[in-house]
Amino acid sequence: MIKRMFFPLIAITFILSAVSHYMHWGAEIEFAFAGLAILFAAGLLGKATESVAHYAGQRIGGFLNATFGNAAELIIAIFLIKEGLFEIVKASLTGAIIGNLLLVLGASALAGGLKYKEQNFNVHLAGQNATLMLLGVIALFVPAIFVKTEHISTENTMTISIIVAAFLIFAYLGWLFYSMFTHKDMLEDHMDTQADHGEKPAWSRRTSIIFLLIATVMVAFISEWLVHTLDTFSARFGLSDLFVGAFVVAIVGNAAEHSAAILLAMKNKMGAAVEIAVGSSLQIALFVAPVLVFISLLFGQQMDLIFTTIEIAAIGVAALIAISISRDGSTTWFEGKLLLIVYAMLGVCFFFV
Amino acid sequence: MIKRMFFPLIAITFILSAVSHYMHWGAEIEFAFAGLAILFAAGLLGKATESVAHYAGQRIGGFLNATFGNAAELIIAIFLIKEGLFEIVKASLTGAIIGNLLLVLGASALAGGLKYKEQNFNVHLAGQNATLMLLGVIALFVPAIFVKTEHISTENTMTISIIVAAFLIFAYLGWLFYSMFTHKDMLEDHMDTQADHGEKPAWSRRTSIIFLLIATVMVAFISEWLVHTLDTFSARFGLSDLFVGAFVVAIVGNAAEHSAAILLAMKNKMGAAVEIAVGSSLQIALFVAPVLVFISLLFGQQMDLIFTTIEIAAIGVAALIAISISRDGSTTWFEGKLLLIVYAMLGVCFFFV
Amino acid sequence: MIKRMFFPLIAITFILSAVSHYMHWGAEIEFAFAGLAILFAAGLLGKATESVAHYAGQRIGGFLNATFGNAAELIIAIFLIKEGLFEIVKASLTGAIIGNLLLVLGASALAGGLKYKEQNFNVHLAGQNATLMLLGVIALFVPAIFVKTEHISTENTMTISIIVAAFLIFAYLGWLFYSMFTHKDMLEDHMDTQADHGEKPAWSRRTSIIFLLIATVMVAFISEWLVHTLDTFSARFGLSDLFVGAFVVAIVGNAAEHSAAILLAMKNKMGAAVEIAVGSSLQIALFVAPVLVFISLLFGQQMDLIFTTIEIAAIGVAALIAISISRDGSTTWFEGKLLLIVYAMLGVCFFFV
Repeated sequence: MIKRMFFPLIAITFILSAVSHYMHWGAEIEFAFAGLAILFAAGLLGKATESVAHYAGQRIGGFLNATFGNAAELIIAIFLIKEGLFEIVKASLTGAIIGNLLLVLGASALAGGLKYKEQNFNVHLAGQNATLMLLGVIALFVPAIFVKTEHISTENTMTISIIVAAFLIFAYLGWLFYSMFTHKDMLEDHMDTQADHGEKPAWSRRTSIIFLLIATVMVAFISEWLVHTLDTFSARFGLSDLFVGAFVVAIVGNAAEHSAAILLAMKNKMGAAVEIAVGSSLQIALFVAPVLVFISLLFGQQMDLIFTTIEIAAIGVAALIAISISRDGSTTWFEGKLLLIVYAMLGVCFFFV
Repeated sequence: MIKRMFFPLIAITFILSAVSHYMHWGAEIEFAFAGLAILFAAGLLGKATESVAHYAGQRIGGFLNATFGNAAELIIAIFLIKEGLFEIVKASLTGAIIGNLLLVLGASALAGGLKYKEQNFNVHLAGQNATLMLLGVIALFVPAIFVKTEHISTENTMTISIIVAAFLIFAYLGWLFYSMFTHKDMLEDHMDTQADHGEKPAWSRRTSIIFLLIATVMVAFISEWLVHTLDTFSARFGLSDLFVGAFVVAIVGNAAEHSAAILLAMKNKMGAAVEIAVGSSLQIALFVAPVLVFISLLFGQQMDLIFTTIEIAAIGVAALIAISISRDGSTTWFEGKLLLIVYAMLGVCFFFV
Repeated sequence: MIKRMFFPLIAITFILSAVSHYMHWGAEIEFAFAGLAILFAAGLLGKATESVAHYAGQRIGGFLNATFGNAAELIIAIFLIKEGLFEIVKASLTGAIIGNLLLVLGASALAGGLKYKEQNFNVHLAGQNATLMLLGVIALFVPAIFVKTEHISTENTMTISIIVAAFLIFAYLGWLFYSMFTHKDMLEDHMDTQADHGEKPAWSRRTSIIFLLIATVMVAFISEWLVHTLDTFSARFGLSDLFVGAFVVAIVGNAAEHSAAILLAMKNKMGAAVEIAVGSSLQIALFVAPVLVFISLLFGQQMDLIFTTIEIAAIGVAALIAISISRDGSTTWFEGKLLLIVYAMLGVCFFFV
């Protein structure tokens, strides 16, 4: 029954949300419809990710989910850069990184951990993820400490940012080549693929990827509409731009990926959940952020890679605790709880800035 | 012979120390008697901990030892807060955390390592301890860096402290539930409990806990008397309040727990020693410190959780090296030596502030 | 053919380089001859290290290589201290530490990793190396943060430096005793020594050590001549003293050790390569740097251990990523690439200071 109604419900809620947004039916109604629509679209996204993971492995499934999701964020960031709103871009990049590392990973580990005592994933992958996260933190920390303690001109700061950005993209492409080709077998989740043998996916390989793409586009549109309604709420509650950018937008804008990761964790596919959460934040730190530096140049703008002290501290702290928890290749409910607590602590601090 | 004289000697030295303290026989004599009394009381404490550990496992034994020990410190801190001496409270909390992580753990690993080539304990527990230590450091670091780099009002600083304190207590209670109930088996020291099979404890379960309680109370009183004599010595040697609070009081005030941990390590019960050392510092960071924030409110005072830069640096450094050494679930004499060296380095730096 | 010409070629290129240097044939020609000479001397150094490693194990072989190499740097540093050029000494120590941890280890892992999918070395050793690196970072960080945030007099800063230096030497001597005597077996590379069984070394034990010594002395002279030509080049390209000291001199001055480590890695003797790279940087941080503090006193100078913020940041970052990569006792080409990228990032930042 629910299964048969799934696709029609996705379509109806999406259309209702679209109409309410473009007809300006008011923030409360738009919010309600968008919330409903994103719930169903997220269901499709999770199902499509799972189906792709069946054919291509959990890592590729999670990777595609993360990539499609970040593509939407990239597009929004480009519009902001065009208007020179660099601080908002950096706040939202910060929010996306810590949101994925703490909220998505934490909620997945907690939800999955309440059902399964311990959830395992590839320990080699966990180690490499940890090193790459560290690289991302170093690439933010090193130029910032040089700029903040030595007398480096704006021009040289930009030059440093461009070179560091090029290095990060070079590292990320190397990582794709390494993890998808030369050392693919070492980083695979053998346990999970075996566990899948019995299940039969609903869709073919091609259909799965198409649905993954469609679901991502839908989710991108709905979250855009959802974020739009936030202005009303944030004005009403007196929230700062920094807090809205780094927390509210990051949570709402990534709601679908979040729920996809949680759904997979509850099916004991922690490998795919980790890939969505950690893989997505790595992609933002090592690929999206540096690419935006180059894109800013295309528009005659100059967005450097120097984040504020509290942004670097937040990303560093998030990376450290996520590394400490995931490095052994397993998670439990308590570890999920700890990640969520650190996220909440950061949220409280950002709220009062 | 020594065994038969054990209880009488405990009683005699305790009474002598008490009389010398209340009759004001002079700092030197009081110091000598208190030193002697704490030696015997510590012996009882160690024996009681070991006996409790036999019945309930090394973790519970160590946990009870740490908890009773910290109860005394909590009481002293409450008196200080009543008088608004927040800086001394924070210095003594800092001293207790780094004293446990570096001095107690270091001395235990060194003493035990001189007898046994390598001493093992549960590797899962070591990993969780590492993550919890990190949480404690993050909870001190994050609010501090926000307060120090952004313009946050005193009122908002207090609000942040209260919320972060609540999160820490929430995390610590979750940890107790997790480690004592849902994942107890995963965190137990299987090796050590097997090694115990042959030994027969001297006391029953109930007697052991009562002795543990009595010994803790005695130790609390004697260390109070001992600390009292320090004023004379510190004035004579020109020591600063910060140094006395963070090092002298922390060493003398925890002398008994220290010796209990060392005795257990020398009996190759490193699991219990780690629980006393690391468990105690976690309890201070995640429970005692945040509880004191709420207690300060009860007295109409406002003690926030913002520690000084050097206090946070000291705790962070202690946590990092303790994590690096204990994470593999084993210690050697050399690792103990390294912990002691870091403790000595911090002591030298605090001495010159 | 090449084998028979090996020793004559070493001698000829060495003499040519010496003559061109002392006769002042011009920077370009001196540079070319020195570059050629160091190539052959490095070949001898690598071969000798490998031969010593055959008899005494990879660790001792690597240790002797690192020690002889650092002896040369120690001598140069002493001359600089005599003239009161403390900042240059600290910059070159920084450069040597990060050069070994990032450039040498990175190039070895990359070169070896292109031939072998995964290269392993003793995981216990990797853990101890990580802890010792952390100790080195702590010994630089703690005094610096005390001096920079509290009001500590120059006199007390020197006293702190002397005591911390003594502790570091004490730790390093303990490490030698621990790793060469009490826990030697635990830290050995069992796999590699087995793999060597078939091979027969070209030289006897004694000859190998003598060649190791001769090659080191030759390399020390040639790198001195090579560094001398750099003045011309750095003036021409407008390089800062800091950049030349921390990067150019460190790379050129250690060229031979670098190539020895890379050659060993390409023969799948990653244990010896790690010992040269990590062992050498540990020796500089825990032994050479503190010894220089005491040597400065002999010359009536006062060189403290307080490095600049960016130097400490660079060393801390290098240690963190090297620890993250080597801790599991294995390396791959991608991990080597990441180390080189972090080195390049630091180089770019130092270039613009």
